[in-house]
Amino acid sequence: MISGKKIIVSGMKKEVDRVWEAIQTALSGTSCALVSSGDPGIYALAGLVFELCRENNVGLKDGNIGDGQSLYVEVVPGIPALCAGAALLGAPLVHDFAAISLSDILTPWEIIEKRLSAAADADFVIVLYNPRSKKRNRQLDKAKEILLGYRCSKTPVGIVTGAMRENQRVCLTTLENLEPHAVDMQTTLFIGNSKTFVFENKMVTPRGYGDKYDLSITNL
Amino acid sequence: MISGKKIIVSGMKKEVDRVWEAIQTALSGTSCALVSSGDPGIYALAGLVFELCRENNVGLKDGNIGDGQSLYVEVVPGIPALCAGAALLGAPLVHDFAAISLSDILTPWEIIEKRLSAAADADFVIVLYNPRSKKRNRQLDKAKEILLGYRCSKTPVGIVTGAMRENQRVCLTTLENLEPHAVDMQTTLFIGNSKTFVFENKMVTPRGYGDKYDLSITNL
Repeated sequence: MISGKKIIVSGMKKEVDRVWEAIQTALSGTSCALVSSGDPGIYALAGLVFELCRENNVGLKDGNIGDGQSLYVEVVPGIPALCAGAALLGAPLVHDFAAISLSDILTPWEIIEKRLSAAADADFVIVLYNPRSKKRNRQLDKAKEILLGYRCSKTPVGIVTGAMRENQRVCLTTLENLEPHAVDMQTTLFIGNSKTFVFENKMVTPRGYGDKYDLSITNL
Repeated sequence: MISGKKIIVSGMKKEVDRVWEAIQTALSGTSCALVSSGDPGIYALAGLVFELCRENNVGLKDGNIGDGQSLYVEVVPGIPALCAGAALLGAPLVHDFAAISLSDILTPWEIIEKRLSAAADADFVIVLYNPRSKKRNRQLDKAKEILLGYRCSKTPVGIVTGAMRENQRVCLTTLENLEPHAVDMQTTLFIGNSKTFVFENKMVTPRGYGDKYDLSITNL
């Protein structure tokens, strides 16, 4: 898909530069795709496109190319890490869930703590993004401590790194045995709710059919 | 993809029968795909496959077909309504969010209320699934009332029905103007957090770059 096309690359923490370059390229009349892994709208750069347009008086319009002052922006959805990871684990997200990023680079830690407590208390399945990086190595310990204040220590935890990539690793553990050193920036963590179970190495959150219907075959 | 293949269909509320028929078909040695719209792991039937296997002593194993007693089950992730809808609206989900189903058929309403309050209080963007059906017509009114207890009445609300389908409808409003009658079972609702804004008809939740960096062009 990229052969013969101009490719613009920039490193981590250069998101603003990269997105602005994409906007400028499109404004010049060249169709330009800003590529994210997963879904561009889940903890990714789709938002920054709109933020930069707003801050710099770049209008949005329907059509196919930029006219120097306004852009046509289309967000193409994808399969986010929370879906790819859930599929590899089994079915941990078939009931209400909360997605929380543990990165406090752009979000004050107090807000993250409040969200962890609220989600744990209300029995959401919890998906943790950005649990750790080389420089951020204490957030997951603290998150684990908060979650243990609300959830049973045996709560199933799924750990997925590099879902659907060559470096893919999938691991099941429990909240008490969650080892923060085993995760990195490419890891997504899934913390079960009070009803999540493990069956034959699959992590499953019941939707509630078993409370309403008898699921044993003789009664079907 | 389905031409020449045997197709098994069943109606709403026949989920247990349908999934069990899929399991039986696979156990008989025939490869069988259980099809969901969106992602099969988000409020969909992937979980029921594992629940029925567990309840009926059907084992899981690696391999390609069933041997009469155990199955190879692969969950193939897809693009859930929350991603498809978010892409159509702009970028409402680039920060922490909670997904909540308003259907109290399989979940007690008190749990749903608790989750609405917790998610609203902790300033999650909130995605509401199953906001209404022909028989369930009061849940969304109550949810709106709860959310208004925590969120500004001008909070942006995105309403997406039939995302990426022929009957697709996309609408932006505010929490105070949310009209429960405008939604149905195929609608997904997006309630902004305290920082979500609307720019040129796009609903956007900032990731936080603007708090850390100056986003105006002259400073790049």
